Amino acid sequence: MSLACGVDVGGTKIAGGVVDEEGTVLEELRVESPASDADAIEEAIAGVVKQLASRHQVEAVGVGAAGYIDKARSTVLFAPNLAWRDVNLKADLESRLDLPVVVENDANAAAWGEFSYGAGHDVEDFLLVTVGTGVGGGLVLDGRLYRGAFGVAAEIGHMRVVPGGLTCGCGKSGCFEQYASGSALVREARAGVASGIPGSEALLARAGGDAEQVTGPLVTELARDGDPFSLGLLAQLGRWLGEGVASLAEVLDPRVVAVGGGVSEAGDLLLGPAKEAFHRELVEDRHDPALEIRPARLGNRAGLIGAADLARR
Amino acid sequence: MSLACGVDVGGTKIAGGVVDEEGTVLEELRVESPASDADAIEEAIAGVVKQLASRHQVEAVGVGAAGYIDKARSTVLFAPNLAWRDVNLKADLESRLDLPVVVENDANAAAWGEFSYGAGHDVEDFLLVTVGTGVGGGLVLDGRLYRGAFGVAAEIGHMRVVPGGLTCGCGKSGCFEQYASGSALVREARAGVASGIPGSEALLARAGGDAEQVTGPLVTELARDGDPFSLGLLAQLGRWLGEGVASLAEVLDPRVVAVGGGVSEAGDLLLGPAKEAFHRELVEDRHDPALEIRPARLGNRAGLIGAADLARR
Amino acid sequence: MSLACGVDVGGTKIAGGVVDEEGTVLEELRVESPASDADAIEEAIAGVVKQLASRHQVEAVGVGAAGYIDKARSTVLFAPNLAWRDVNLKADLESRLDLPVVVENDANAAAWGEFSYGAGHDVEDFLLVTVGTGVGGGLVLDGRLYRGAFGVAAEIGHMRVVPGGLTCGCGKSGCFEQYASGSALVREARAGVASGIPGSEALLARAGGDAEQVTGPLVTELARDGDPFSLGLLAQLGRWLGEGVASLAEVLDPRVVAVGGGVSEAGDLLLGPAKEAFHRELVEDRHDPALEIRPARLGNRAGLIGAADLARR
Amino acid sequence: MSLACGVDVGGTKIAGGVVDEEGTVLEELRVESPASDADAIEEAIAGVVKQLASRHQVEAVGVGAAGYIDKARSTVLFAPNLAWRDVNLKADLESRLDLPVVVENDANAAAWGEFSYGAGHDVEDFLLVTVGTGVGGGLVLDGRLYRGAFGVAAEIGHMRVVPGGLTCGCGKSGCFEQYASGSALVREARAGVASGIPGSEALLARAGGDAEQVTGPLVTELARDGDPFSLGLLAQLGRWLGEGVASLAEVLDPRVVAVGGGVSEAGDLLLGPAKEAFHRELVEDRHDPALEIRPARLGNRAGLIGAADLARR
Repeated sequence: MSLACGVDVGGTKIAGGVVDEEGTVLEELRVESPASDADAIEEAIAGVVKQLASRHQVEAVGVGAAGYIDKARSTVLFAPNLAWRDVNLKADLESRLDLPVVVENDANAAAWGEFSYGAGHDVEDFLLVTVGTGVGGGLVLDGRLYRGAFGVAAEIGHMRVVPGGLTCGCGKSGCFEQYASGSALVREARAGVASGIPGSEALLARAGGDAEQVTGPLVTELARDGDPFSLGLLAQLGRWLGEGVASLAEVLDPRVVAVGGGVSEAGDLLLGPAKEAFHRELVEDRHDPALEIRPARLGNRAGLIGAADLARR
Repeated sequence: MSLACGVDVGGTKIAGGVVDEEGTVLEELRVESPASDADAIEEAIAGVVKQLASRHQVEAVGVGAAGYIDKARSTVLFAPNLAWRDVNLKADLESRLDLPVVVENDANAAAWGEFSYGAGHDVEDFLLVTVGTGVGGGLVLDGRLYRGAFGVAAEIGHMRVVPGGLTCGCGKSGCFEQYASGSALVREARAGVASGIPGSEALLARAGGDAEQVTGPLVTELARDGDPFSLGLLAQLGRWLGEGVASLAEVLDPRVVAVGGGVSEAGDLLLGPAKEAFHRELVEDRHDPALEIRPARLGNRAGLIGAADLARR
Repeated sequence: MSLACGVDVGGTKIAGGVVDEEGTVLEELRVESPASDADAIEEAIAGVVKQLASRHQVEAVGVGAAGYIDKARSTVLFAPNLAWRDVNLKADLESRLDLPVVVENDANAAAWGEFSYGAGHDVEDFLLVTVGTGVGGGLVLDGRLYRGAFGVAAEIGHMRVVPGGLTCGCGKSGCFEQYASGSALVREARAGVASGIPGSEALLARAGGDAEQVTGPLVTELARDGDPFSLGLLAQLGRWLGEGVASLAEVLDPRVVAVGGGVSEAGDLLLGPAKEAFHRELVEDRHDPALEIRPARLGNRAGLIGAADLARR
Repeated sequence: MSLACGVDVGGTKIAGGVVDEEGTVLEELRVESPASDADAIEEAIAGVVKQLASRHQVEAVGVGAAGYIDKARSTVLFAPNLAWRDVNLKADLESRLDLPVVVENDANAAAWGEFSYGAGHDVEDFLLVTVGTGVGGGLVLDGRLYRGAFGVAAEIGHMRVVPGGLTCGCGKSGCFEQYASGSALVREARAGVASGIPGSEALLARAGGDAEQVTGPLVTELARDGDPFSLGLLAQLGRWLGEGVASLAEVLDPRVVAVGGGVSEAGDLLLGPAKEAFHRELVEDRHDPALEIRPARLGNRAGLIGAADLARR
């Protein structure tokens, strides 16, 4: 059976894994990411791959990285959290590894992973929405990974959902991720706790009495215990998410939208309100077909698995 | 040279044409559309094609119709302005015509026409935005027409751009076409004239003193004469359009967005402000690549030309 | 003890009552409102007052009517639901009744009633918000009824809260009452039920399976039984209400905001989320003083009681 | 003729003047504001007053200060740009000056000045809107200065005009002053220039080629020269202003709204679009009475004049 190595390069961790044709990860390694040194990151990636390749018959290497990748899937044009600027990562790694290498945007890789072996395995048109610190996305259309003309398709977090809306870190205002991300959740939670609104006491207490210590996982934890304030925060996020998916559905018409990322660990506490808001936007009279909103299945291995599979093709 | 017949079926007119491999329309016919009688429309389409085919060596027929078309490009599931409900138009027409028939959504056909022979001829990732009574769209991605999982991709007019926004005819609220369509232009123009805002006198006079007689073409006409109020109305529409395109660019990452439809006849009076608003949304620091906003080139023949070309393939 | 007669003139009912100096209603009468006949309404008002005056020593008559009243509190300039146009109601009624008459806008009368004997009795700066079919308001500032320069102050339902928002019956868009009124509640409830969103089944069942039979009282009833969908609808309304009150507080700086009108019968199911949303908008660092949001106390007698009291002064 | 001394205390300057009963400033002095030293500010105020009083027969002193003032008009509870926290300014100054002192919020003082001797001299219900770095306001209702229950009425800059809107310095989001202030003008101008939108070249050139050097006065200067980009920026600000005034009119029903503050020096380039937008929001069918939007008349002396007049009463 053909094996490939997938590598997911982030700002803090580099994760590598050996993946078989059924998407199973046979072995996985994680090392720190020397994010500020362009050469050291390559060294670290090569190190992880060499270790894995010493124990498995690896045929190709797929690297997923957060950044703008050129159409040839060779060069990282720009990576916001890594030191790479116009680095021909494919050539560099191939010379270090003596294996064929493919470079892919990490969100694309994750979408491909979920499409091939996860939440989108049974459909042809698939959108992965990643709800973490920001909101990201990856698109598979007609069974093919869609990268866009400039390699930046599915930057759904920066679709404008509120004209004149909240200022975004990207420089624009009203971006989707200002309302539907983990950061939005934390912002709203802290504001609620800080202004002492009735019902927020439990969350404040769980955060040791300090609003600035409120985190997304804390909110989810309390919501699971039934805390109405925390449930309300997740429901509000879910509504924004579902309404955003409704807009994306008008444009992209996918068959399945999968929701992944750290915040998606809240499960139905998030997806329930999201589905409710999405269905509210459906219009019976227009004979709107019902896409399905599903939880992502591969967790934080989606990128690694997808990158490996793309390398094999 | 291979010839195909393209037919554009609308609620008021049926237009048929013979199209060669270079997108040239050799002959064109237009008849009234018997929109309320499902059988009569087929009869009328067949009549137009037979006439054209009697004078040209037509190999295939492409029909573009406003409606939901199934994935097999045979059956019209639902057409808002025509009597068709679950009609196997392909089979019906093939039996009447003895020629291979392909059925396509009209916006898709127009996008394909512009992609093949018009504003998108030199790129692979292309979005056609049609600004008429409503706002429609068609998508060519990686050089292939993208129809969506349910055949309703690129319904960009119903992307939500204002939460809690203006009520749309579709049953939702805040839809893009409530702000960026010809109907929006007329609504704003009439409201301005009716409330007698300073500067609106010229438009009112041109409409014979009756606010309800203000139309989109009147606004464009006055704007061309330099009337500041009418220029302002087109600029406002253009801003919404450019901001919408900016959101679509985040999701779709096309290389070119072409703007067609009746309102686009205002030319730079509309596209100038649209480009300005789009550029304002670009963020230098994110290394946003600059897609190009262009006028559509094929006018109302885009659908016919595109349908013919799709039939030939 | 001095007694006055208060009359509340609505589109469907005329309610009259004898009110003493402590705001107690000694006797009350209700008759149908012949709303489409200007003369008949006056006749009906006079009839009610005469009956009451035959049994009580009434000194003055206060009439509250939905409409624009002139500064002299004599003439009804325009009444949307009644046949009156430029009617000198004061003169007409005084000639019929031989008693001094004062005419007041009904929302102003209700605000004065609540200020004098109800939810605002202990403060000087008071806003009554009436949440019924629409959203209305009345203002008492520095202990005086504030009518506005044109007699139309506190039309808070038509403050714009969403730019480009939902179309309002008044001709504008984005008005507060499109989001925070009983009509908004019913619209959202029916839309939710009609699109079959999960959790809406109980409300649909309670409405006999017909979305169009969903009413505000039905939603409140189910919410009281703990139905999450109905609770969510009231909470959403409450949030809009609380956020609107936060804006009004920036402008008007009242000490107390009382919430009355039909929808306010939902009590804490509405006021709880409203208070929560209001507090979220308060900013600690700005040393925002905390106005109090209270339920109104006089129910639908507020207008009658207030009108009587104004007549006595 | 009775003379009073008015003092306007800001974060950078202290301005004092001797004002007669007709609102004429007989003599004026300006000194630096030692803003960070509570005691030194009092010293500076007293110095200015003493100098003026040595040359004029002053009967009373009115001090306008940016901050929260208690109902007794004695104590500054909190002043954002000055070192005062719970300072009994009235008592302190009276002991230093041996003259009766009245303390007033500076926006209130300015509104009173314009009401008494400026743009509102002929009406009873008056709103002053100050468009400077932020947006402030002062209210005269029924001919009386309205301070609010907590002394913070007419904080109109923090009325929410966009739900989920731009983050405000006050901690909330979507505040009016994020859209209708001089800061908003500069933000939009710089963003436009920085993204190189067509037409913005002239403004960039005027700013020496550095987007960060664009200022409000530069925009106004170019707009006066007919530069379309700068005119567009002022028009956009004017539209927000006019729409905000429309909302305020629904709540407050003033007879006149005067627009002052630094940005109002753009005159009709700002007020023209503001009036247009306001009129667009008026609804004929509702018989909306037309308040008047006027330029303020007293410039930056409004506060000083108003404070003096309030002291005399």
